Amino acid sequence: MRMRNKPWVNDYLNDYDNDILVQPDSLKGKWRQLLNVDEIHVEIGCGKGDYWIEMARRNPNQGWIAIEKERNCAAMALKKAEISALENIRFILADAEMINQWFDDQEVDYIHLNFSDPWPKKRNTKKRLTYDSFLDSYASILGKNGCIIMKTDNKKLFEYSLINMQSTWIMVNVSVDFRSEKQDDAITEYENRFMIEQKPIYRAVWRKR
Amino acid sequence: MRMRNKPWVNDYLNDYDNDILVQPDSLKGKWRQLLNVDEIHVEIGCGKGDYWIEMARRNPNQGWIAIEKERNCAAMALKKAEISALENIRFILADAEMINQWFDDQEVDYIHLNFSDPWPKKRNTKKRLTYDSFLDSYASILGKNGCIIMKTDNKKLFEYSLINMQSTWIMVNVSVDFRSEKQDDAITEYENRFMIEQKPIYRAVWRKR
Repeated sequence: MRMRNKPWVNDYLNDYDNDILVQPDSLKGKWRQLLNVDEIHVEIGCGKGDYWIEMARRNPNQGWIAIEKERNCAAMALKKAEISALENIRFILADAEMINQWFDDQEVDYIHLNFSDPWPKKRNTKKRLTYDSFLDSYASILGKNGCIIMKTDNKKLFEYSLINMQSTWIMVNVSVDFRSEKQDDAITEYENRFMIEQKPIYRAVWRKR
Repeated sequence: MRMRNKPWVNDYLNDYDNDILVQPDSLKGKWRQLLNVDEIHVEIGCGKGDYWIEMARRNPNQGWIAIEKERNCAAMALKKAEISALENIRFILADAEMINQWFDDQEVDYIHLNFSDPWPKKRNTKKRLTYDSFLDSYASILGKNGCIIMKTDNKKLFEYSLINMQSTWIMVNVSVDFRSEKQDDAITEYENRFMIEQKPIYRAVWRKR
């Protein structure tokens, strides 16, 4: 989701001094230990961070690491994270392209893709978070039973992902109207809008083949 | 789709005397020749027959064979077929369970499943037209590049099919909102209702792995 530039963001991020914001390169292979958890969840493109923080709050035995490159979003997410005082969260302010330099082979249990940028134009296919190069990275950092969980309101991104992932991933769960189902999942402000407008949310869970 | 028993149906079907209605066992391996076409399309569960007839009308070089076991639907479809005077259509009044006794290996090019009964209860899983035993039959009668084309308004049947078919079929096309797209496809009365109500139609096309 696009956001207007906020004047306080640069100063805020430059002065940010809290363990939540990390330099991930040095943490490769050490996340479980760092967060003192059994399960590692990574959300790529956390936006304003509501899902990330709420899920971490509900699941104190899980480590939740958010990745966001957009600085306005990142600043808002980090503000909320500070207030939350949660200890099982970390934040990476960078492009997820380098994700396999931050996590060791099989170090991650779940990758969450929530309402990712659909990059609808064909020439931007490579930027979609379910494009081959990203999938290769996910395959290496995810553990044996590791899963990708995608939730989106964007039909085209969802359809693209269904087609593109089928050769290397097994779809273990799919819903073409996720909001109509009873589920145990944090609902963000962004997502709530679709509920009110009665627009469908698509969701799928994939495991490595 | 369920229909009330119509008093004229039994007499009509018993007295039916037109080449359209066939005994399929004796036609195994002979469909192309019989219909004088290059491409064989089979619609399983044609209901009142609107899709079957309209597609056959638009594509005179294709043979269109409809299967329907429900006698009230069958009678209505056969009436329309008679009036249409099309020569590239045939009708099988029977349960599709035996489909591989009616078509030779690789004899069929496309199998169409339109708004099939979803059989939502778990104990009826075997009756769904994308259940394993049906898929095995389709795999044998479909040619090398043969496809299954499914269109449905039923979320659960669609989701079930996506999951159940992935190990043995390749999804070559998918749409979670087919009606919103420009396409060259006959629209039935039944389908039109969903358009008016703005309910989504799901569609996928699979090829053998």
